[in-house]
Amino acid sequence: MSPPAFGFELLATDGAARRGRVTTAHGVIDTPAFMPVGTAATVKGMTLEEIEATGAQIILGNTYHLMLRPGAERIARLGGLHDFMNWQKPILTDSGGYQVMSLSDLRKIDEDGVTFRSHLDGERLALTPERAVEIQHLLDADISMVLDECTPFPASEEVAAESMRRSLRWAARCRTAFQARPGYGLFGIVQGGVYPALRRESAAALIEIGFEGYAVGGLAVGEGQEVMFQVLDDTLPALPQDRPRYLMGVGKPADILGAVMRGIDMFDCVLPTRSGRTGQAFTRRGPLNIRNARHQEDTRPLDPECPCPTCAHHSRAYIHHLFRADEMLGPILLTRHNLHYYQEVMAELRAAIEGGNLNDYAAKFAEEQERGDWGIG
Amino acid sequence: MSPPAFGFELLATDGAARRGRVTTAHGVIDTPAFMPVGTAATVKGMTLEEIEATGAQIILGNTYHLMLRPGAERIARLGGLHDFMNWQKPILTDSGGYQVMSLSDLRKIDEDGVTFRSHLDGERLALTPERAVEIQHLLDADISMVLDECTPFPASEEVAAESMRRSLRWAARCRTAFQARPGYGLFGIVQGGVYPALRRESAAALIEIGFEGYAVGGLAVGEGQEVMFQVLDDTLPALPQDRPRYLMGVGKPADILGAVMRGIDMFDCVLPTRSGRTGQAFTRRGPLNIRNARHQEDTRPLDPECPCPTCAHHSRAYIHHLFRADEMLGPILLTRHNLHYYQEVMAELRAAIEGGNLNDYAAKFAEEQERGDWGIG
Repeated sequence: MSPPAFGFELLATDGAARRGRVTTAHGVIDTPAFMPVGTAATVKGMTLEEIEATGAQIILGNTYHLMLRPGAERIARLGGLHDFMNWQKPILTDSGGYQVMSLSDLRKIDEDGVTFRSHLDGERLALTPERAVEIQHLLDADISMVLDECTPFPASEEVAAESMRRSLRWAARCRTAFQARPGYGLFGIVQGGVYPALRRESAAALIEIGFEGYAVGGLAVGEGQEVMFQVLDDTLPALPQDRPRYLMGVGKPADILGAVMRGIDMFDCVLPTRSGRTGQAFTRRGPLNIRNARHQEDTRPLDPECPCPTCAHHSRAYIHHLFRADEMLGPILLTRHNLHYYQEVMAELRAAIEGGNLNDYAAKFAEEQERGDWGIG
Repeated sequence: MSPPAFGFELLATDGAARRGRVTTAHGVIDTPAFMPVGTAATVKGMTLEEIEATGAQIILGNTYHLMLRPGAERIARLGGLHDFMNWQKPILTDSGGYQVMSLSDLRKIDEDGVTFRSHLDGERLALTPERAVEIQHLLDADISMVLDECTPFPASEEVAAESMRRSLRWAARCRTAFQARPGYGLFGIVQGGVYPALRRESAAALIEIGFEGYAVGGLAVGEGQEVMFQVLDDTLPALPQDRPRYLMGVGKPADILGAVMRGIDMFDCVLPTRSGRTGQAFTRRGPLNIRNARHQEDTRPLDPECPCPTCAHHSRAYIHHLFRADEMLGPILLTRHNLHYYQEVMAELRAAIEGGNLNDYAAKFAEEQERGDWGIG
């Protein structure tokens, strides 16, 4: 049996929102989809069984972390990232570019690519468009991302234009370097800062090169939700209907809802996992900080309407205690809840689009988030 | 329906070894039994579902930690320790005495009890025999332990005798303070250092007071396995056949095997959990340190004969990577394996006693442990 071709099927729409299905070498992804972040070949604190139980159909791996440790060649020798971590569903990897710029030392960027020193051991390394694609191939990512330059924010139109055009030249090199295989895809990344003309230029040039999907990059960098939604409004009409669209690094549940309503299909964000480790829970009634003393004798679950195992089995009082006592189980239970909650919101969004009632869902969602915690201050 | 009486049923013997069943308010415990340590209302890094899946029928809670945070009265208001952590099977709590002596500051011990400062916030607190029993009642422990004085090791016979006799006076006060309830029991603790006459004196005096079970304390403090086994040989014949016997704080798998062969029924130890966090795995072929570089491309499980989910799903190479990258999942996976392994050894011991072939099992166990890792150096 030959592996399935990489593809995107549009199943339903509601306004600009899309209900779709991405097919990859390792299975399908129902969209709109949220991808938990599995930086170093692990979604922090979660066992494989727990991630699967959240309903996640795809996770994201970070090329920068994995190339440094344990190394892309080592992962390839061990059968690729799926076998290494035993996650047999789809994986998307980023290109490594974003983390090189935010985490490494002594980085230098030029037309060829980026050179930098590992933040782990100081080793001098280079990341070019070709190497970024090669690493993602070694990792066996179902979806690879082109290497792009991270445009600073804020940036003048001139700076944003130069940066975006360099990213386009890199995108073309990535396309050339990418070895086509059934079920594997390479996504281009639309850049251009907050400038509609640049975003449209970027989109048109990427479509000309041709990718299996298109990401919107350079957002969630401090521009705020309003500006982000404006950029999506300016950009998404320029993208083809028959390819998946991925908004990188976003976001809060309300950000995801607004982006879905504008036509985004895929998301990734560290918020549910990172917040889970620091004590913030996302709920149907907005976020809550479990470290707050008001929870210390509260026998209710984090979210009384949540069917996740954390909410089914444990009280706020208990999780509060675990965080106060610095017990590993606190982050574990809260991360598990947050990932379940995110996947439930995605399932509700998919159902709302199928049912043609996304606007009603959005109104109810906003009303509930604003109503605040269940019956307490 | 009235709760079951606290009891111990002797189901089979093989030499001095006993196959039994303890009945408590929250269920039965098949012995020989190993109790994972759940210090602060959590077995570190393990979810409830994971502990249950190991086959553990009872866990241990630490009175000292719980009285400081979140506090015994708070746990009582929240329904007791079972409801607080949602572990609905039996719980044994220690008396707090051992940790007061090892963890707190400015402790002072006299006939009344111990006064000390909390290692968390410096609060001045007292632990008397009566308060130790009251706290364990507030926690709703199925099995409470008497407060005893921890005899230093090594200790002269005179020091050991004085300490043991103070512990006896405290044991009598604990017995008086303990509120009898169906399904709940109080265990006495045999002390007396390495001196057979003192051990026998302690046992006889405790039996005279009368307890639902008897522990052997003051071991696993550096005396070595040979001395420990000698103390058990000297002590256990003095204990009644119809009550469970608990060897506190022991131990390595081979220690447990030897103690079972001498007639011990119950064990607790931090080794499987603490070692799991630091990278040591217990296996049928002895311990291994997963941080060792020889594991970095080893695609085999920790223990090829182990049916636990860690060994079913993950390679040594992956767990090695998780420890090198300081990822929470490393300790989680290794703790899970170690707890499964300990429970499997206990199940094998119970089956061997039932089958009357404990000596054969012990020989095979020792041979396998000494054979070393499967086919590698």
